[in-house]
Parts: sequence; C-alpha cells; structure tokens
Amino acid sequence: MATLIAPINHSPVADAEALHGAFKGWGTDEKSVITILGHRNVYQRQQIRKSYQEIYQEDILKRLESELSGDFERAVYRWMLEPADRDAVLANVAIKDGSKSYHVIIEIVSVLSPEEVLAMRRAYHNRYKHSLEEDLAAHTTGHLRQLLVGLVTSFRYGGAEINPKLAKTEADILHESIKEKKGNHEEAIRILTTRSKTQLLATFNRYRDDHGISITKKLLDNASDDFHNALHTTIRCINDHKKYYEKILRGALKRVGTDEDGLTRVVVTRAEKDLKDIKELYYKRNSVHLEDAVAKEISGDYKKFILTLLGKQD
Amino acid sequence: MATLIAPINHSPVADAEALHGAFKGWGTDEKSVITILGHRNVYQRQQIRKSYQEIYQEDILKRLESELSGDFERAVYRWMLEPADRDAVLANVAIKDGSKSYHVIIEIVSVLSPEEVLAMRRAYHNRYKHSLEEDLAAHTTGHLRQLLVGLVTSFRYGGAEINPKLAKTEADILHESIKEKKGNHEEAIRILTTRSKTQLLATFNRYRDDHGISITKKLLDNASDDFHNALHTTIRCINDHKKYYEKILRGALKRVGTDEDGLTRVVVTRAEKDLKDIKELYYKRNSVHLEDAVAKEISGDYKKFILTLLGKQD
Repeated sequence: MATLIAPINHSPVADAEALHGAFKGWGTDEKSVITILGHRNVYQRQQIRKSYQEIYQEDILKRLESELSGDFERAVYRWMLEPADRDAVLANVAIKDGSKSYHVIIEIVSVLSPEEVLAMRRAYHNRYKHSLEEDLAAHTTGHLRQLLVGLVTSFRYGGAEINPKLAKTEADILHESIKEKKGNHEEAIRILTTRSKTQLLATFNRYRDDHGISITKKLLDNASDDFHNALHTTIRCINDHKKYYEKILRGALKRVGTDEDGLTRVVVTRAEKDLKDIKELYYKRNSVHLEDAVAKEISGDYKKFILTLLGKQD
Repeated sequence: MATLIAPINHSPVADAEALHGAFKGWGTDEKSVITILGHRNVYQRQQIRKSYQEIYQEDILKRLESELSGDFERAVYRWMLEPADRDAVLANVAIKDGSKSYHVIIEIVSVLSPEEVLAMRRAYHNRYKHSLEEDLAAHTTGHLRQLLVGLVTSFRYGGAEINPKLAKTEADILHESIKEKKGNHEEAIRILTTRSKTQLLATFNRYRDDHGISITKKLLDNASDDFHNALHTTIRCINDHKKYYEKILRGALKRVGTDEDGLTRVVVTRAEKDLKDIKELYYKRNSVHLEDAVAKEISGDYKKFILTLLGKQD
C-alpha cells in the first residue's frame, strides 16, 4: 500500500499557476510547493509539468532547482521526475559514486518489474547518450562486473512457473559458490542474473530447507568484499524488497548525520507503491514509528516534505 | 531494398478463403499457397492469419504444417511467423543445436535494432516461458557464455555520437585481445557487447588505420575455437551485415547437399528488408545471379517459393 495522499480530481493548470505564484518575488513559498507537489501522484505531476511548460514556457524542474536548495531541492526534484527517468539518474549517480553506491543499482533493477527495467534503460539512453550497461561495464571489472552488468541487462521471465528440481540443483550451486571465497562464481552469477524471480524464491527456500540457514544470513558471514556485498544485496532485494528497504531506512536514520540520500530515495520511490507496508515493518522492527524517527533526525522544509510523502495529514 | 513483391491492396478474407480452398480435398494446391503467401508483406500475412482464424476457427500455421512438408513447409512456416516470434524460434533452435549454430543467435541480435532485440526477447518469454539469456547461459560457459549472453542482453545506445579517443583506445584493446589466444578477453567482450554500433564502426575503422589490416581478417587468422569464431561473427555482423549474409548464402549454396536452413533463414528474414542489396553483392562476388544459383541447387515447391521471395516475376 502507498502512503501518498492525492486528490482524485485536480487541475494541472491551477496547480501550475499556484506554483508560479509560490516562486514569485523574493523568497519562495515552500509551504505551497509541499502542499501541492506532496499530494499529487505520478500522472498528476507530469500533467503539472506539462501545463507549466505550456503557460510559462519554462521547465518547472529547472525553476524548482533554482528556487529550492539542499536536501529539500533534491527530494522535490527526484519526486518530479518520471519514475524511469529518476531511476536512470539514480543509477548514473551510483556509477560515478563507485562501489559504495552499487547497491542502489542492484536495488533498482532487482525490485522493478522486467518491463520497468527496460523503461529505465530507455530513459538512460535518452538522458546520457550511452547505455546503462556500457557505463557500468566501463567502471567495473571481474566478477563484480559480471554480476552487475548481468543484473541490469537481464530481461527476466515474469511468469509463475517453478521447476523444483532446478531449485534444488541451483541451491546447491549457490551454496558451493558462497563457501569458496575465492572460487569461480560464474554459475552463481548466471543463476542470479537469469532466472525468474519466482524460480529464485523457490531456490532460496530450498536453500534454507537443505542448509538450515537462510542464504542471506549465510552470505553475511562471508560478505567481505564488494562482490560478496553485491551478491548479498541482490539476494535480499529479490527475496523481500520491503524488508530490504526497511533496513535501508533504519541505517539511514541511525547514522550520525543521517543518510539523507538513502532516506529520500526510499521515500520518493516507494511512496506511491508500498511505503505503508515498509512503515509497518519499520515499526515492528524498531518499536518507533518511521514518522517519529524521521521527525527527530531531519528538519525544515525537507522534513515537512518527507513527512507529507509518508502520509502525514496536513 | 526489399525483393518481396506485394500488392498495395489485398483482401485478407479473400486470401484466407483462397488458401482454405487450396487445402481442400486430397493433396494441396501448393501453387496457390506460393502465389498468395509469397506476395504478402508482414502486415498482410498477419491479417490473413487473423481472418483465417476468424472464419475457420483454425490456426493457419497449424494447417500449413500438416498440408506442406520438408524444406518448403519450414520456409512457409517461418515466413508466416511474426518477425520477433520467428527470431525467437530461430534462437531457441540454435541453442539446442549447440555451438555450430551460435552464429544464428549472434546474427539476430547484432543485425536487429536495439528495440527489435527487445521485441524478440519478449516473444521468447511468451513462447518458451524462460528468458533467452536464461536458456543460453545454461548451455554455455566461460568466455563464450560471456560474449553470447552479453550480446543478447545488451540494449545498445542507438544514437550517432562517436568518441574518437575511445575508438583509438578500444581498437588497441581489441588488438591485444585477438593477439593473445589464451588471454583475458573480458575487455574485448565488454566493448563488443556494450558500445553502440556507430561507436564500434569507428573502432573497427581505427583498427584498420592503425594495424593495416581489417579486424575481421586479423581474427580469421586466429579463429581456432568457438569463442574466436563467435567474436569473428559478431564483428562481421556489426561491421557489414549485408556482406555477412552474402557469405552465408554463398556457403549455403556451395556445400555438397546445400544448407537449406541457412538459405531459408536469410531469404525469409531479409526479403522485406535488404535482400536486393544482398543479391547485388552476391552477383558481384560470384559472377552468378543468386536466383540462378538457387535454381540450380534446390527444387520443387521449395524452389518456387524461395525464388518468389527473391523477387522472381510469376
């Protein structure tokens, strides 16, 4: 379930005019920006952008960039991009950022549906005049490259068929691959990058049945390098992406100084999808409401905006 | 330029009825099948299939399979499939056939546009309930797998931008990779599977300028195993696919016993695209018209059908 609260009817023209008013004169009326954009769904936001362009011959994204600043600006900007385009931007930033951000790329391509991944790759072409795999492959080597490029280029089968025999064989292959730290991981990479998600879930379940421990826990014992970390993230995102996002939020809010990028990313990408479920998981795990943790850690317009997306009533 | 001669106007219903008539009673009126289907473009053929289904509650493809036989049946069947679906079938047959047929897969994904490759991968899902890369990866290993899976999963950027500096660097990397027979080919694989075709053409040109020999000729000296053969096919298909197809036809017709599969594949997949150009290349290279070579090597209805697709006037 989503957390976003959006009206069923809205006038893109009225919204564009109200936002234009909020930008006028000295200073910006941030409150109006939050009240309007924090309550519009993806379709409505694109309509506003279109209307704004038509009325004022200006891209509202550019205008928002110059009117707002800091974490608030980044959050609003990402919120305003079309999802496929936003994910392309996130992936590109992660590539430039290097191995500490590769989990963002894994997260995007492992959580999205196969067709959504294609849309993101198309958006990447349009924006960067390169393919995503081209840029990613040029920045990585060895097993890590094989895994990452395999994940972003895969067009997984989306059906519900399961082959139980294959689940057994491939659970064993994954087990062997995790055991040997310096082993040949090509088969593990093949399995994780090509099998359907349904088949992989069957394989992970089989792993737990046969080895008495979940594959993610087992991998944690061995996650000592970038490749094993990437393997771990991949399996977690495929296995249960809501649990994965809960942990990202927990880590982001627990850090000294807060990881605003992580917080923004999860809230902005999930607010219209399943942030309500993630919020519940957060409460279950931390005995603190996500809104309260957020309210304590961040401040100002950024805080107001994030809380709005989290479903706080004005 | 295409060789197919199709009418601007046709009635799918009249065609379906005429074909139904051709199937009636003992024996089949193959001449009508050839006259009708050999002169309909891809859109018209799909209309006929639809009308036939509506009028007779039967898939004309199934009917054709039972009415026709041998090479003629296979050629008509492939001609009747939607291109993306046909390519999915060709790729699946090639996977099962093993390394001697991998050139078919390379050919499909290297010649099609990036969006056409996606359509083919979608058709593969629908037909086989697996992804193409999943089946291909499960049948291959090592560098050959990396190259093949990289090629089928790539969504190349389609723009015309060229980076000349990159072309120089990567021409050198390809040169090193070809020299060392047992070397680490990961960088060569990365380049060939991720760069845009325009960029790769610039790289191949640079290779020729710097090394005084074309990269395909250089590779021929070293093509001793499946991997190097696959590398060679990849570069030829990207570099000049018409020249590549001419050579496939030459090889198919020169063999003792003729390679009907190769002949059918090229004619059926290119008749609506650039078979006229390929025919001209064939004549230039062999001083024999392709139609004459075909007429000499094959016979019966199969021959009539292939010649029709080659543009022979009835």
